[in-house]
Amino acid sequence: MEKIKAAIVGYGNIGRHVLEAIQTAPDFEVAGIVRRNGDADCPKELKEYKIVKNISQLPKPDAAILTVPSLKTEEYAVQILSMGINTVDSFDIHDLIPETRKRIMKVAVEAGRVAVISAGWDPGSDSIVRALMQAMAPRGTTYTDFGPGMSMGHTVAAKAVPGVKEALSITIPLGTGIHRRMVYVEIIDGYKFEEIAAAIKSDPYFVNDETHVVQVSSVESLKDMGHGVKITRKGVSGKTQNQLFEFGMKINNPALTAQLLVSAARASMRQKPGCYTMIEIPLIDYLCGDREDLIRRLV
Amino acid sequence: MEKIKAAIVGYGNIGRHVLEAIQTAPDFEVAGIVRRNGDADCPKELKEYKIVKNISQLPKPDAAILTVPSLKTEEYAVQILSMGINTVDSFDIHDLIPETRKRIMKVAVEAGRVAVISAGWDPGSDSIVRALMQAMAPRGTTYTDFGPGMSMGHTVAAKAVPGVKEALSITIPLGTGIHRRMVYVEIIDGYKFEEIAAAIKSDPYFVNDETHVVQVSSVESLKDMGHGVKITRKGVSGKTQNQLFEFGMKINNPALTAQLLVSAARASMRQKPGCYTMIEIPLIDYLCGDREDLIRRLV
Repeated sequence: MEKIKAAIVGYGNIGRHVLEAIQTAPDFEVAGIVRRNGDADCPKELKEYKIVKNISQLPKPDAAILTVPSLKTEEYAVQILSMGINTVDSFDIHDLIPETRKRIMKVAVEAGRVAVISAGWDPGSDSIVRALMQAMAPRGTTYTDFGPGMSMGHTVAAKAVPGVKEALSITIPLGTGIHRRMVYVEIIDGYKFEEIAAAIKSDPYFVNDETHVVQVSSVESLKDMGHGVKITRKGVSGKTQNQLFEFGMKINNPALTAQLLVSAARASMRQKPGCYTMIEIPLIDYLCGDREDLIRRLV
Repeated sequence: MEKIKAAIVGYGNIGRHVLEAIQTAPDFEVAGIVRRNGDADCPKELKEYKIVKNISQLPKPDAAILTVPSLKTEEYAVQILSMGINTVDSFDIHDLIPETRKRIMKVAVEAGRVAVISAGWDPGSDSIVRALMQAMAPRGTTYTDFGPGMSMGHTVAAKAVPGVKEALSITIPLGTGIHRRMVYVEIIDGYKFEEIAAAIKSDPYFVNDETHVVQVSSVESLKDMGHGVKITRKGVSGKTQNQLFEFGMKINNPALTAQLLVSAARASMRQKPGCYTMIEIPLIDYLCGDREDLIRRLV
């Protein structure tokens, strides 16, 4: 079997988990890892791999899995697609997805390659669940309730408040898409907790949610990469009301994101040139194995 | 907007619900209904439609939704595809799906048309959930627990036992894919309940499950088209164990089956010629509406 040669671009928390997902996928091999520092300070689990500063220094991979910050994914995707390499990213700024898709589409089609954008769990597998529920009950209401689990975006926003030394924002689901924010902070000597708490609560990230700020001596000791989601829909199939659907999961967040990036990289090898979100790709294309055997086992 | 002209082939419980799903779909119109008796004894909700004995008597529809028994779907699909009409069915004999797909594939490709087979909730939307869970955690175990709800196959098997006047078999989920069968029977005078109960319990449909047979005076008064399912997976994303996923629903069974048949008929208009199970079609293709707008709302 010809294996899919995948490069990992960026090597933070998600990147490490992508490496593990590739190592356990029978149809993949690691083409190399692209890190800002190249092979300086190289973590020991990378010793056996090619570590470079630029993807052009690697033998040409089939696909590049981008684990760079959301705001940088498009720049990387455009550059790497133009080199004739498929890209997969987990771009997660929901409002910007349609426009981003359109711009990357143009580049992907010109390069004759495939980009999968916004692959992960939300956007990503949750999007698939929402689309499926809509196919089952076209009228109705879907709620996505996140957590309990750490929110990266809210944590970064809390950290940016002057006087905050370390922060952690945990999302608590209250149902019907309403969330409570529990923000744990260590503060820098000389700052007043009350002022920091007020600043956090008035930040655009928090101002619309019930937010509680708690001072702690060690944020590090609270960190847990576990997360969860519950998606519910009550809707109408045909003219029949009150059809009830629910999807829930309790997962390690970076591990699931990484696994879905690798599954999407596999799917990228099976699409026509273009740029796709996860709901635009048949489910079977994400899976390893013989097509008829998958149909036999899963349908 | 050019509407999709769909014919309904067969007009039993599912067929009636397909009509309702088409009536509520903004992008569909009813091309006509094919019934064994044609327009004899025509139910009043069909007065405004063309009712025929053979689909060839209708102005050519874009798609035919087959609501005939599973064992007859292939015959109908082959005949109707050859007339240049897409077909959708809910063929539900799991073991036979791969071979059936292969045979219908040949006919569909030759006719330049699309067949979607095994569209419904299981096989169908449950298959999509199982495939998604496998993409999220490639190693692990998935259990599909049905019910509580009426099983058509088991009900028919119980009815076939000599001395049974009327029967109803309800599936009770015990977890990890194990089910209890609650069989309610009215018996014909002169037969012994104990013998009937023993015959049901030794029938191949029941012999491997915990089965309870209960004599009642009216099976009709127990009938309820509600059904449910719970699909759970515990698996591994990359090298991270204990990822937990759950999907559940409580639904009107024929209404959901019918809605998914109509969503699949829509998707059939957007695929290349061939025969597809639901996991082979992008989720977005099942949905009504502008593609970019769907991406904006669902991804």
